[in-house]
Amino acid sequence: MRAFNFSAGPSALPVEVLQQAAEEMLDWQGSGMGVMEMSHRGPEYASIHKQALEDLRSLLGVPQTHRILFLQGGALAENAFIPLNLLGTRHVADYVVTGFWSKKTYQEAHRYCAAHLAATTEMSRFTCAADPASWQLSKDPAYVHVCTNETVNGVEYFDLPDYTPEVESRLGAQEESVALVIDASSHILSRPLKITKQGVIYASAQKNFGIAGVTLVIVRDDLLDRALPICPSAFHWKSVAQSDSIYNTPPTYGIYMAGLMFQWLKRQGGLSAIEKRNIEKAQLLYTAIDSSAFYVNKVDPQVRSRMNIPFHLTDESRTEAFLAGAKERRLVQLKGHSSVGGLRASMYNATPMESVQALVSYMQDFERQHA
Amino acid sequence: MRAFNFSAGPSALPVEVLQQAAEEMLDWQGSGMGVMEMSHRGPEYASIHKQALEDLRSLLGVPQTHRILFLQGGALAENAFIPLNLLGTRHVADYVVTGFWSKKTYQEAHRYCAAHLAATTEMSRFTCAADPASWQLSKDPAYVHVCTNETVNGVEYFDLPDYTPEVESRLGAQEESVALVIDASSHILSRPLKITKQGVIYASAQKNFGIAGVTLVIVRDDLLDRALPICPSAFHWKSVAQSDSIYNTPPTYGIYMAGLMFQWLKRQGGLSAIEKRNIEKAQLLYTAIDSSAFYVNKVDPQVRSRMNIPFHLTDESRTEAFLAGAKERRLVQLKGHSSVGGLRASMYNATPMESVQALVSYMQDFERQHA
Repeated sequence: MRAFNFSAGPSALPVEVLQQAAEEMLDWQGSGMGVMEMSHRGPEYASIHKQALEDLRSLLGVPQTHRILFLQGGALAENAFIPLNLLGTRHVADYVVTGFWSKKTYQEAHRYCAAHLAATTEMSRFTCAADPASWQLSKDPAYVHVCTNETVNGVEYFDLPDYTPEVESRLGAQEESVALVIDASSHILSRPLKITKQGVIYASAQKNFGIAGVTLVIVRDDLLDRALPICPSAFHWKSVAQSDSIYNTPPTYGIYMAGLMFQWLKRQGGLSAIEKRNIEKAQLLYTAIDSSAFYVNKVDPQVRSRMNIPFHLTDESRTEAFLAGAKERRLVQLKGHSSVGGLRASMYNATPMESVQALVSYMQDFERQHA
Repeated sequence: MRAFNFSAGPSALPVEVLQQAAEEMLDWQGSGMGVMEMSHRGPEYASIHKQALEDLRSLLGVPQTHRILFLQGGALAENAFIPLNLLGTRHVADYVVTGFWSKKTYQEAHRYCAAHLAATTEMSRFTCAADPASWQLSKDPAYVHVCTNETVNGVEYFDLPDYTPEVESRLGAQEESVALVIDASSHILSRPLKITKQGVIYASAQKNFGIAGVTLVIVRDDLLDRALPICPSAFHWKSVAQSDSIYNTPPTYGIYMAGLMFQWLKRQGGLSAIEKRNIEKAQLLYTAIDSSAFYVNKVDPQVRSRMNIPFHLTDESRTEAFLAGAKERRLVQLKGHSSVGGLRASMYNATPMESVQALVSYMQDFERQHA
């Protein structure tokens, strides 16, 4: 029996995607090989790889001005490879810190440049966003980095990562226009985006579109000539772009799984349809939290994440009992991140409405029992 | 019907391993989740991860002086992370170049240090090894790098990567003893090793023990304090070691597959038993090549790889016909690497004897038809 899985990542996948992967495990489409067993330079894998790139481009509407790269290492690794690929001759990069992950990203950048803190919401314990109008940009940064959904803190930007007029007026007004770099790890493909002038949008796969070990980087073409000489060749975006992400052996099985997820998303009706479901799931849980004095979510309602919903019991001494009772009902991976405690329900694309309904029903029962 | 798969990597996996993976895809041991869907910090994945590390340590006999790390990026990425983790205050590293891969490794090192060419066999077109007695070591290198099986060229060291008395006398005699760094990507776990004083042994998984996207690094404890400040934190060996390879999200499914391969290797009788089979497979094919004027392998017989056997038709104009006929018999992925041409049969741990028999039988038939 499948559990109701609320993991923040790696996270639940659709049953039909897992079934297809299991069915093709020993023999992919009559090739006599499983996908894991294929040379990354052979025609079978090439067709899987190409299809995944094409499906992603059409799903997200990635314009021809941007390249799509599949890399390894997760978003944490990319936090080093962003300055290594983008600094060029500049020495400063600006960071907007709105939670656990963007803070880590900002810290990593210090290895390579003068990382400038353009904004932080740490004084409000990462319960709100930092409006682009408030960013204190430095004079000539190589880029401005923003995380548009904080997985740990549950704060999501809904105007970003689109390149809004507000962003345009801030970044385009610089002497040389500044690249906007977006960590979209925990919301990419959960809703439509308008990709226009953004510099880089990156994300790890294990939340909304696949499994751990694949990192997606969407980068504007004209930014590919800025890499530092110390950038490892396996993570040198230009080399990876020129080889269509087969510069060295790619994580072939992870890319295959991402491809199955892209096809699944298309069958669901694309990103507008999946966004509608994601909104319904999030509203169901936020309503349950807000309509009860037993549970609390502290995030500014304007920027509450649809993907990751951290919440507390008003009486925190009952958290362990809540988790134990949840497990009995097969509601799993609900423990909050160690930095914030409490509970967290992550509800990505593949989380079915039934999981959220089961959670809300349990929350109401738990409240009745303990009120 | 399964093909006879000779891919150089990603490569064939045992049927029983693939079957287990397929069976557990939607529900791992009653957890209600597939392995892909588990948080890397939850108890279910933790048990998979720990077991894989323990099984590998016992299979390879890794002593307590060495740490085992699971990383991402493949061996190519590691070629950057080796100097980044090992240079410390030194500026020189020595490289022994015996084929396509060690040459690439040597080239990558130039980004970070004065890479010194201690030996090369390029003048003999990479058909022999370079004896440690012949290495022209620099005065105070941070380490000496050797690739002990060249996947493209089919050259394998059989005394290395053991830390032999000959190596000891060359490296231990330096002012500060020099770390021996071994790229064992395409033979690790194909035979027993004696791990004693080696500095680093590293390998990508997609040949002998799993799938693309997992990189194994075995590193001597005392070398963990040498990282440069510009080493990305996700690839900082000390941080990864201290977190038992869960510093950031590891490639969980790839580590699970590696774990299934470790258990499979144990069921086969361990590395001595698998070595015996690997010798038998290689002998069968080399004998077929050597006993015919139709086929030729140009590698020094003393160092012919058991894993990767590049060979040519004496009449190279027949190569395409050979490959087409092979495909009809479901003998696949036999094309040689673009840098050497011709044919190549890679026969890792999971290649069954039946595959080699089918290949030899086809070679003989092809010769009869075309003689």
